[in-house]
Amino acid sequence: MTSPDHLVLFMPSGKRGRFATGTPVLDAARELGVYVESVCGGRATCGRCQIEVQEGQFAKHKITSSNDHISPVGPKEQRYDRVRGLPEGRRLSCSATIQGDLVIDVPQDTVINAQVVRKDADQRHIERNPAISMCYVEVEEPDMEKPLGDLDRLLAALERDWGYEKLEVDFHLIPKVQKILRAGEWKVTAAVYHDSQDTRPRLIALYPGLKNEAYGVACDIGSTTIAIHLSSLLSGRTVASSGTSNPQIRFGEDLMSRVSYVMMNPDGREAMTKAVREAINTLIGKVCDQGEVSREDILDLVFVGNPVMHHLFLGIDPTELGGAPFALAVSGAVHTKAAEIGISANEGARVYMLPCIAGHVGADAAAATLCEGPHRQEEQMLLVDIGTNAEIVLGNSTRTVAASSPTGPAFEGAEISCGQRAAPGAIERVRIDKETLEPRFRVIGVDQWSDEEGFAEEAAKVGITGICGSAIIEVVAEMYLTGIISEDGVVDGNMAARSPRILQNGRTFSYLLYEGAQKITVTQNDIRAIQLAKAALYAGIKLLTDKLGIDHVDRIALAGAFGTFIDPKYAMVLGLIPDCDLEKVKAVGNAAGTGARMSLLNRDYRREIEETVRRIEKIETALEPKFQDHFVAAMAMPNKVDHFPELQKVVTLPVRKVLEDATGEAGGRRRRRSR
Amino acid sequence: MTSPDHLVLFMPSGKRGRFATGTPVLDAARELGVYVESVCGGRATCGRCQIEVQEGQFAKHKITSSNDHISPVGPKEQRYDRVRGLPEGRRLSCSATIQGDLVIDVPQDTVINAQVVRKDADQRHIERNPAISMCYVEVEEPDMEKPLGDLDRLLAALERDWGYEKLEVDFHLIPKVQKILRAGEWKVTAAVYHDSQDTRPRLIALYPGLKNEAYGVACDIGSTTIAIHLSSLLSGRTVASSGTSNPQIRFGEDLMSRVSYVMMNPDGREAMTKAVREAINTLIGKVCDQGEVSREDILDLVFVGNPVMHHLFLGIDPTELGGAPFALAVSGAVHTKAAEIGISANEGARVYMLPCIAGHVGADAAAATLCEGPHRQEEQMLLVDIGTNAEIVLGNSTRTVAASSPTGPAFEGAEISCGQRAAPGAIERVRIDKETLEPRFRVIGVDQWSDEEGFAEEAAKVGITGICGSAIIEVVAEMYLTGIISEDGVVDGNMAARSPRILQNGRTFSYLLYEGAQKITVTQNDIRAIQLAKAALYAGIKLLTDKLGIDHVDRIALAGAFGTFIDPKYAMVLGLIPDCDLEKVKAVGNAAGTGARMSLLNRDYRREIEETVRRIEKIETALEPKFQDHFVAAMAMPNKVDHFPELQKVVTLPVRKVLEDATGEAGGRRRRRSR
Repeated sequence: MTSPDHLVLFMPSGKRGRFATGTPVLDAARELGVYVESVCGGRATCGRCQIEVQEGQFAKHKITSSNDHISPVGPKEQRYDRVRGLPEGRRLSCSATIQGDLVIDVPQDTVINAQVVRKDADQRHIERNPAISMCYVEVEEPDMEKPLGDLDRLLAALERDWGYEKLEVDFHLIPKVQKILRAGEWKVTAAVYHDSQDTRPRLIALYPGLKNEAYGVACDIGSTTIAIHLSSLLSGRTVASSGTSNPQIRFGEDLMSRVSYVMMNPDGREAMTKAVREAINTLIGKVCDQGEVSREDILDLVFVGNPVMHHLFLGIDPTELGGAPFALAVSGAVHTKAAEIGISANEGARVYMLPCIAGHVGADAAAATLCEGPHRQEEQMLLVDIGTNAEIVLGNSTRTVAASSPTGPAFEGAEISCGQRAAPGAIERVRIDKETLEPRFRVIGVDQWSDEEGFAEEAAKVGITGICGSAIIEVVAEMYLTGIISEDGVVDGNMAARSPRILQNGRTFSYLLYEGAQKITVTQNDIRAIQLAKAALYAGIKLLTDKLGIDHVDRIALAGAFGTFIDPKYAMVLGLIPDCDLEKVKAVGNAAGTGARMSLLNRDYRREIEETVRRIEKIETALEPKFQDHFVAAMAMPNKVDHFPELQKVVTLPVRKVLEDATGEAGGRRRRRSR
Repeated sequence: MTSPDHLVLFMPSGKRGRFATGTPVLDAARELGVYVESVCGGRATCGRCQIEVQEGQFAKHKITSSNDHISPVGPKEQRYDRVRGLPEGRRLSCSATIQGDLVIDVPQDTVINAQVVRKDADQRHIERNPAISMCYVEVEEPDMEKPLGDLDRLLAALERDWGYEKLEVDFHLIPKVQKILRAGEWKVTAAVYHDSQDTRPRLIALYPGLKNEAYGVACDIGSTTIAIHLSSLLSGRTVASSGTSNPQIRFGEDLMSRVSYVMMNPDGREAMTKAVREAINTLIGKVCDQGEVSREDILDLVFVGNPVMHHLFLGIDPTELGGAPFALAVSGAVHTKAAEIGISANEGARVYMLPCIAGHVGADAAAATLCEGPHRQEEQMLLVDIGTNAEIVLGNSTRTVAASSPTGPAFEGAEISCGQRAAPGAIERVRIDKETLEPRFRVIGVDQWSDEEGFAEEAAKVGITGICGSAIIEVVAEMYLTGIISEDGVVDGNMAARSPRILQNGRTFSYLLYEGAQKITVTQNDIRAIQLAKAALYAGIKLLTDKLGIDHVDRIALAGAFGTFIDPKYAMVLGLIPDCDLEKVKAVGNAAGTGARMSLLNRDYRREIEETVRRIEKIETALEPKFQDHFVAAMAMPNKVDHFPELQKVVTLPVRKVLEDATGEAGGRRRRRSR
């Protein structure tokens, strides 16, 4: 005789186990640790526990169809279907019971974003497991014979129905509990916060009746921009997103000027803390309006940001970050209540801030790491987030290292004569004809390239005002590929004979990209600024590859706004990034924001990134004697072309010819620099 | 060969164990769970870990003296003695090491109060084990190679030196940690709050350098009076005590009128909460001034009070307590931060409020129970705290029951024609001559009895203004013993023939106790009020003895101000309390306040009372059909004299003669009442 138990397999997690006839599918899922939401506690009223059933029987690893392996739709499910509607093929797992071998699909409504769930990269699914659980209970009414307090009876019901022993209680609820219980006629929904197994679960909010929704906020506090997402903690769906400029900009454009502001002004820290918190409160209001969600329903918030943003947001004086040894006040994850830091949400709402990796490598880099997951894969992955500093993480599941390189603001257009932010009117793409040295380009806000019909008309409407970061990379790379500049980055004055676009300015030359209402040129100083920035970045990366003892990377993720817009090919031509199969170089967008959202929707990611950050080896570039050597060596472009098989592919034959001409060597090998 | 280990016995706990040569005595104490304070972590600088050594060797259970069983005084102890002085016979247990069998005395500086440590009652000693530990650590300086945050390095030091894993951190410290670490030059003292083993320890305060003191507050919030004690958490010493009237009196004299005030006034709850918190803040300021302690050094606070006081203090609307089913918002112990309820102490200071037993039996009764410990003994103990309600706890270690009896305010003098609070000018003791029916009495503020020389002169200075609670009991009991009133409580008009002090008022008679500027009389209504009150109390006690199926109690503890001043003999004559060996009837003073102090100084008492309150069986007098019968039966005085062997001893021969005369029966047996 075979076992009376039935084999049940949950997809997509693949978790499986044997269960007796009549076991509710929800109970089986719970026992296996498959996350299936449920608010009503098995009363078939919340509809959160829906599943899809592939009936079946495991025979030689094949499922043969059969239709009696799950209980028929019962009266509770019929009632739910009548009242709220049950989609075709869906069952309520609290009511449907196991009657035979089964394959159960847990619908993954949660698509965090394409980067995370991309099938080609890894097959990981984002299972939700938020720190907040919504728990509906029916509480015993007061009884003079057993004079337990109202709260105590509520806690007893939460232990009885949801298994919460020794639940802690937020004090702010205590004066409210009697009114809420009576308003709900002794039926209430408790929001329980349980961030980690190491801590006791905590009652943080209480609603009369069945409360079938709860929301969370993920926020990336950038020096320039604050981005926010409002998500349902129960479905995982992102309900609304918004962003705004960081109002701290008025205290200082870049991080160090904000730190200086604090040093110079006794109230500087407080003013900046207030500014960023107010901006976030406004953004929360905005996404709540967009998503038609009440602020009161926000119960959990996750924040990321670089170390200075992290400190200022939390109300910590960032002065120590302004000089060696760049001591963070706190590097580990920070938990607090939203109310404690002046963030308006539910009174019991919790805040989680991801850990910082080092004094220059913040919670934003940690979140990007969590999103891209170098620590989860065998391949060597390089993750680069370029801002005023470039935050660099390199490694794989065996070993991961991180550093920050002082690239300066050149890549953001700040030290470039005609540089500007990516905005309408900014040149964003550039190509230079290798014969005529004439440029063609695209402008943000204009559909056509500059040599296409209709461009002039459209461009006139927008106005061409400058060059944004991505175009700076491209124009310098194109100038190099066309031989306008040498590998040392010097504009070749001899080229002036070939094109009127090579202009002389005293002892140096520049390249005229566009002449309209104003001249847009690339000067020798601009090229030097880019060289310095890319050399700093490359030297930082080199320190990390040295540390790991590897000579190549398998995969590159370019994070942040800059990473999103630059063309990886040009980044490689210029030597910003090391050689890598171009197919495996990806712009991953706001990976920090995505990492924040992952941490919001699944508390296990919090433990994962905390553990990862503890394991990451930190390299302080300023302390590494070889940094300077690497930096000097990386000033030229492209770095060691001969070591760049991928670059050799990129630089197609005619271009390689130019390269060969420029370097005076055959086969792309570059002559030894003589300095 | 015998074991190389040495037997070490710690007194007074009697805990013992075997330890290797060279083990520091402090480590041995820790291993055995003997509480020995230490702040400096074994650096021999704080001096908190002092012990006394009885050197010795266990031979046939006798200790034979020898002087080499403890290490000689080493350089660290010499230094401590030089700098701060070490009392004769004391050693620092962190430095002294075990070299042979030893008996160690852990000095018990803590004498909570006479009731608790009274040797005749029980041999329990109050070992301190506060929820707060002061932990001195030396923190690693920041290191760019290992960029852990300052807080993270502090936590690492606390784990390394004090064994705190996964310490949680109060958020308010995070913005301060860098300045404190630098002010202390990386040497700091952390205050760790660890109320229970079920919760994670928590860093709540941080001080630069060695902080060798921490304070706590125990507060009993009475309807009439608020009493407060400031104690050192490290030595257990009570540094200062103070008290004040409860300012809520202006909203209503008794509890129910305060509940009514809340029902009638939308802002009533808030106003009363504010009033009591302000009064407590003022008292904290007072005891801090008295004890020369900074408010900032108060880290833990324990509060007790009856259910209405408990709710109003915590900001909970007490309306539900105003009517059946008298639902408490919360009955379990409440933890919060002082800052969260507007109490001014250290920003991280914690508040613990003892559990309530039932809707009418509050945290004050729980604290009194903890202090007197019926649940700790074999004898049946009756604990009575008389206020507007009498809170009654009865039982022993096997079973404990509790109830509240609606005595009304007569015992407090409120419904008595010449009643007044215990204050100068109030009559507090009364005797009536059985022959002449002339009274003699004592007045608060006057040393002499009224028939002693010099009384008139002194009394004139003070002025005789009324009768306080204790004298009301005595005068009624004396009137009964002298036959002025019958067992039914009726003033015998026939007595007017014997004494001009028996006055006629319409159809009833009264007794003239004193005639001065004003007449002080005891009227028939006064006697009725006392009868009603004592019958209610006695009926409540009877319900509890019925519940336990016992016909006597072994021990009676009278708590509270009223209990302190009444003479147990008269309480028994009047039938307030059941028969009991008078030697075992004790006024225990502010047992609630003492219970609060015990909970402050030893967190184990918190668990003890929480567990006890869960086990206590609650009787709701209003629900018990027999309450009314008991009440009616208890109106007469004294109740069943024949069942009162103790009362028969009290009522000495001449008096018993009167009793016999009055009851018309021989041998103290009372005639069957014919109503």
